[in-house]
Amino acid sequence: MKACIFDGRQVRVDPAWPEPRPGPGEVAVRVLLAGVCRTDLEIVKGYMRFAGVLGHEFVGVAMEGRLAGRRVVGEINCPCGACDMCARGLPTHCRRRTVLGIAGRDGCFAERLALPEANLHAVPGGLADRAAVFAEPLAAAIQVGRQVDLRPGSKVLVLGDGRLGQLVAQVLQAWQLAPLVIGKSEAKLGVLAALGVRTAHAGAVRPAKDADIVVECTGTAGGLGAAMEFVRPRGTIVLKSTVADTAGLDLAPIVVDEVTVIGSRCGPMDAALEMLQRGQITTEPLITAEFPLDEAPAALAAAARPEAVKVLIRP
Amino acid sequence: MKACIFDGRQVRVDPAWPEPRPGPGEVAVRVLLAGVCRTDLEIVKGYMRFAGVLGHEFVGVAMEGRLAGRRVVGEINCPCGACDMCARGLPTHCRRRTVLGIAGRDGCFAERLALPEANLHAVPGGLADRAAVFAEPLAAAIQVGRQVDLRPGSKVLVLGDGRLGQLVAQVLQAWQLAPLVIGKSEAKLGVLAALGVRTAHAGAVRPAKDADIVVECTGTAGGLGAAMEFVRPRGTIVLKSTVADTAGLDLAPIVVDEVTVIGSRCGPMDAALEMLQRGQITTEPLITAEFPLDEAPAALAAAARPEAVKVLIRP
Repeated sequence: MKACIFDGRQVRVDPAWPEPRPGPGEVAVRVLLAGVCRTDLEIVKGYMRFAGVLGHEFVGVAMEGRLAGRRVVGEINCPCGACDMCARGLPTHCRRRTVLGIAGRDGCFAERLALPEANLHAVPGGLADRAAVFAEPLAAAIQVGRQVDLRPGSKVLVLGDGRLGQLVAQVLQAWQLAPLVIGKSEAKLGVLAALGVRTAHAGAVRPAKDADIVVECTGTAGGLGAAMEFVRPRGTIVLKSTVADTAGLDLAPIVVDEVTVIGSRCGPMDAALEMLQRGQITTEPLITAEFPLDEAPAALAAAARPEAVKVLIRP
Repeated sequence: MKACIFDGRQVRVDPAWPEPRPGPGEVAVRVLLAGVCRTDLEIVKGYMRFAGVLGHEFVGVAMEGRLAGRRVVGEINCPCGACDMCARGLPTHCRRRTVLGIAGRDGCFAERLALPEANLHAVPGGLADRAAVFAEPLAAAIQVGRQVDLRPGSKVLVLGDGRLGQLVAQVLQAWQLAPLVIGKSEAKLGVLAALGVRTAHAGAVRPAKDADIVVECTGTAGGLGAAMEFVRPRGTIVLKSTVADTAGLDLAPIVVDEVTVIGSRCGPMDAALEMLQRGQITTEPLITAEFPLDEAPAALAAAARPEAVKVLIRP
């Protein structure tokens, strides 16, 4: 089959990549549409030392099993079911997990993929592919609310106006938390402003260490340091960026201000599909471009441009 | 009066330093005994850009007010009572606070000091000065339990066998949490082992990312990175070290493992006095040496030696 792979050195389209071979409990999925995430761009820079088919955001059609013939999205973490983390009820933190397009498992920038059947969620009938493809990153945005006590009246900041910042902001807005999004792109902030979200340009904001919660979506190694300038003493920073770089960081303010920093990764896809189905999340303005699978390397290059938000790949 | 000061460049004893002048609501305290903390050593390296009388751990005698003539220990943060943090009930995070021997207020390596009367706690009659002087750092150790849900059966690690690590370990032991302390000094680990605390030498431990809670007391900028190797996914790191250095840190594991990092500083002194009074904390083996105030610079030098635990200064 056709697939976009990273071989450890370069990204290329392979017209004859081996078909996925579903293991026990797994099913094959025909990919309809896939999305490019910053993590894909980091992998190409060496993050996770992954090689194989890239991509983990998709909507497809299950080719077998109980959802055969139905449109599906999929949770990307594939747990062993036997380790201490699985026993603890934390399958996304399985010690021996594979992760679609990120660790030990070919991803979705391909004609077909394989995932455990238990990972699949049926897409509601009325939901367009171009909306359903946001389920995975939207779930990651929703995860913030599962980890932090978001009270009405809290002063909530989102740092970053990119792919994830856009979704986090819309989720917080839907939850009526009136977030302020601080970004660097007039165009991206404009997308949010058009949805009624409060925005400010990073250059025009003076950090005052007065935010109760800062959701760090900068996609840069310096994001935590920047968040520290905005969060109040005893406040909370939700760290969302996974980057290949390391940051030089003065940790003393975390101690002195008794700040809580919470790492946040994947989230609940059922909740994501529900928000999409209810029309609580606006996705069309976030789509920068759509590329055919043959042009996947160009799609990644486009996604890496500063002005890009979500770039889609259609097999 | 006599005082040990840091003038921004060097530490010296000044025989004619100005007497403290208690402001409104403040009282003078005659210092009986003071302790050297790592923070003092960091200040001398430039941390907090403090200049003035060093020191914030003490037991003394109140010279005026409702506790006049009684032995006291004192909370070191002096709040304004008017800012947003004070209004929120977080006086230790007051925006305009002064901090004894750390920020904007002369410390306790002196014959006398001034503190708000509200900061003072009477020392129970039976408690020796050499035990009461541990109240401030012990309160900081107790603070861990105010910030983290310490459940029976949790796997709790203490990284570091120094001043604070010793106290944190004893507190956790008193709370029957059976901590494991990982350190680098056979002698310091021996002090804990003699108290029944489980210990291991850092060189003999293979981190397995399986601790529920890691209390980082290394006193080094690399402490968070080390703690990351021990904490389990969705586990908690309590960060205790305030150091002048910055660390190069790979933040991605915090996100991927969804770890919570909580900064932790000062704690409840009433609870500290109570644990000391009950004999739940053993302090004598922690005292490396006692110096007269005249030799305070030598006391700081002694406290900086790798084998030192608590060095005391007696005015």
